[in-house]
Amino acid sequence: MRITLIGSGNVATHLGAALKNAGHYIVQVYSRNLQNAALLAYHLKAEAIDDLSLINADTDLFIISTSDGVIDSVAAQIAPYQKPIVHTSGATPIQVLLKYTEHSGVFYPLQTFSKVKEVNFRTVPLCIEGAYEDMTAMLKELAFTISNNVSEVNSAQRKILHLAAVFACNFPNYLYYTAQQLLAKHELNFNLLRPLILETAEKVEVQLPANVQTGPAVRNDVKTMESHVGLLNDEPELQHIYELLSQAIIKMGNT
Amino acid sequence: MRITLIGSGNVATHLGAALKNAGHYIVQVYSRNLQNAALLAYHLKAEAIDDLSLINADTDLFIISTSDGVIDSVAAQIAPYQKPIVHTSGATPIQVLLKYTEHSGVFYPLQTFSKVKEVNFRTVPLCIEGAYEDMTAMLKELAFTISNNVSEVNSAQRKILHLAAVFACNFPNYLYYTAQQLLAKHELNFNLLRPLILETAEKVEVQLPANVQTGPAVRNDVKTMESHVGLLNDEPELQHIYELLSQAIIKMGNT
Repeated sequence: MRITLIGSGNVATHLGAALKNAGHYIVQVYSRNLQNAALLAYHLKAEAIDDLSLINADTDLFIISTSDGVIDSVAAQIAPYQKPIVHTSGATPIQVLLKYTEHSGVFYPLQTFSKVKEVNFRTVPLCIEGAYEDMTAMLKELAFTISNNVSEVNSAQRKILHLAAVFACNFPNYLYYTAQQLLAKHELNFNLLRPLILETAEKVEVQLPANVQTGPAVRNDVKTMESHVGLLNDEPELQHIYELLSQAIIKMGNT
Repeated sequence: MRITLIGSGNVATHLGAALKNAGHYIVQVYSRNLQNAALLAYHLKAEAIDDLSLINADTDLFIISTSDGVIDSVAAQIAPYQKPIVHTSGATPIQVLLKYTEHSGVFYPLQTFSKVKEVNFRTVPLCIEGAYEDMTAMLKELAFTISNNVSEVNSAQRKILHLAAVFACNFPNYLYYTAQQLLAKHELNFNLLRPLILETAEKVEVQLPANVQTGPAVRNDVKTMESHVGLLNDEPELQHIYELLSQAIIKMGNT
């Protein structure tokens, strides 16, 4: 397929590379910042543009991979070309595009991307929504060229997925950060915790989290929890987080 | 070495297997519950006992791997044999043993163990403390026979490690659980989140968590956070957790 990328952030970068590797042709890469567009376009052997009036209409699909707030205005500007348009946002309903064109869809990769780390796209869950059957079928076919993990997910479900991803990814990473800070404060190396972090995640690749919960809270080990809260006396915010999450785990253990 | 295991839980099971595989001889396995002792002893080709008066004194080391609350009373009963004693608890100071014998130490594997999943012990961080130099040296030598990741850690530091492990392991697993429950409630498969969970953990194997934080909070994307809080209207407890952790991440982003 001939594909045009609108955006040059983490999702556009990883998705663009996966599409290119699967044999698709990237026509143009648009970014407000021409340098960013040029950098990604160079890797994808595409044309870089920083002005939507320079869009090449000879494309099969526009992929809008910008920040959520500008999807609407971008869609308004590219809809006149009458080509299929998808966005890649977990939090944005398909309606944002449907206002401008019936050829609307969503192509949401449920993964955390950062420029510093390669991702094996074949394992990335791709959540697909099309405004009508042929659009869905086209997006599914495209999705399977880059991933083995493709699902149809409507806008209401995608909202839940996006929320759940905050609990499964963003919040755990923050807790890794608090652990690393605690260690640093006591001159302990974060390497001591890295195998534990990986094992904790690997466990739930096959088990359900409820079956592998460990620690003082699930044992209702009050003495250890009190000792931990005492160690956090100069960190009232962490104390609060410790108590709230421990109470929730105690409750979970009792259900 | 000739080693006696007091306890038959997750730590005793995995540690016993690693020691046995490294060529050590497991003399006895003690558990209050003879069936549990027998099951582990069978795998380790050791003798099972459920009475500490049946202890075979012909051993080089007692490893107490019980729940924290009974370490003290076990130590009192085996100290008269005048053999080195270690416990494997993150939360318990070496003093609990020193009350009874100078040949005291700690052998703390910083990992989460469950009977359902094999662990590669060579990557498990072993945190060693000896009451005196020769004891430390002996424990270090033993530790290196089963792991490549051995550190000297005193009782005060070990307390911090144990606390940090709650933030790095127990709390993230609880958040995986909440994510899984959200998905289940909306008939979405937890498999959609599993690659994200693994990638989030794998990232911090090489990066510092602060450098790979993603999500609406670190972007201070108020609109998305408000929408997420709205989706949790019938889950006030999760709402509270969402708000507390998001505020903490916003603060972290501003430092």
